[in-house]
Amino acid sequence: MSEPFDDLVAALKALPGLGKRSAERIAVHLLVGERDRLANFTRSLEVAAREIDRCPDCGNLARTGQRCSVCADASRNEQSLCVVEKIQDLVAIEEAGSWKGLYHVLHGKLSPLQNRGPEDVNLENFSERVEKLGVTEIVFALSNDIEGEATCHYIAETLLPSNREIRTTRIGFGLPSGGDVTYADSVTLRSAMEARRDFRK
Amino acid sequence: MSEPFDDLVAALKALPGLGKRSAERIAVHLLVGERDRLANFTRSLEVAAREIDRCPDCGNLARTGQRCSVCADASRNEQSLCVVEKIQDLVAIEEAGSWKGLYHVLHGKLSPLQNRGPEDVNLENFSERVEKLGVTEIVFALSNDIEGEATCHYIAETLLPSNREIRTTRIGFGLPSGGDVTYADSVTLRSAMEARRDFRK
Repeated sequence: MSEPFDDLVAALKALPGLGKRSAERIAVHLLVGERDRLANFTRSLEVAAREIDRCPDCGNLARTGQRCSVCADASRNEQSLCVVEKIQDLVAIEEAGSWKGLYHVLHGKLSPLQNRGPEDVNLENFSERVEKLGVTEIVFALSNDIEGEATCHYIAETLLPSNREIRTTRIGFGLPSGGDVTYADSVTLRSAMEARRDFRK
Repeated sequence: MSEPFDDLVAALKALPGLGKRSAERIAVHLLVGERDRLANFTRSLEVAAREIDRCPDCGNLARTGQRCSVCADASRNEQSLCVVEKIQDLVAIEEAGSWKGLYHVLHGKLSPLQNRGPEDVNLENFSERVEKLGVTEIVFALSNDIEGEATCHYIAETLLPSNREIRTTRIGFGLPSGGDVTYADSVTLRSAMEARRDFRK
């Protein structure tokens, strides 16, 4: 169509989950809509850029210059830390309502295969934070794959204090709610077998 | 999460084809990515807002202050006008490569049921344009529904010159390419029956 249009489509297509058709559709929507539609959208982005930042403690989203709503909540248990890969995981766990401790958001996982090391994820303040909070329990809520595994190992082996014991667990793996053995993939089934527990009538 | 975050998600969710989950995912992607990701995205929007406008002649997208690439192309047949509902339709017809005339983009259809009248679509300069170009043929490439029908009727009955004849057609309706009679809906089949043509061996 024209160069600025193609640039806009490319910028939209770079967003997660958007293909070429969706990006074009959104670009046209923004450009041919009411006069101020594009301006309003741009303004929302500017406000967000100005007012939202990462929580300096845990890496969650927070008001710029402030701790996030979880870290700032005095009723949370500061001695329990749940390590997650990304914000969406934190949101999902919060929605499930089964965690009353704090979080640490890595914004990624270590990947030996893709050369993503500790410096590529949010671990800079991790040891310091564990000390400062007096953490006694760490739950790794990381994915059931090699990268999740590598990340747990790295943290457990190099970033925990040597002078005291911290209970370290990984969330359970197995059949999801409503899951059917017939249709479960082999990784899930292997995990589920390993995670088998005594059954009491 | 926080008010500016919710505002950003709401702005994204207002884009066509994005639900709550996709909007959240994009918001997080923009906010926790490399420092300048959000700023770059905002800049693409600003450039687009500044440099792209509607073509003053046909309503297609164009460089601000210029006619669109179709209207500016001297090799196109100015006396044939194809009326489309939206930019994407123009793009689809251009990609099919079967039209050498100009376009007129309505940015909507008349809808008696939803109270969308002629003043809600791009028809202000239509009669004037038809005169100025000396149009001899108009093809309505509008959808096969009541709104498409109403729009064709309105234009044909009120916006065409009374002092000369203009050939007015509507694109064919029927089975799409590869279409199967068994699975075609009744509107398509009715249209296809009405549009039946002599078959020669």
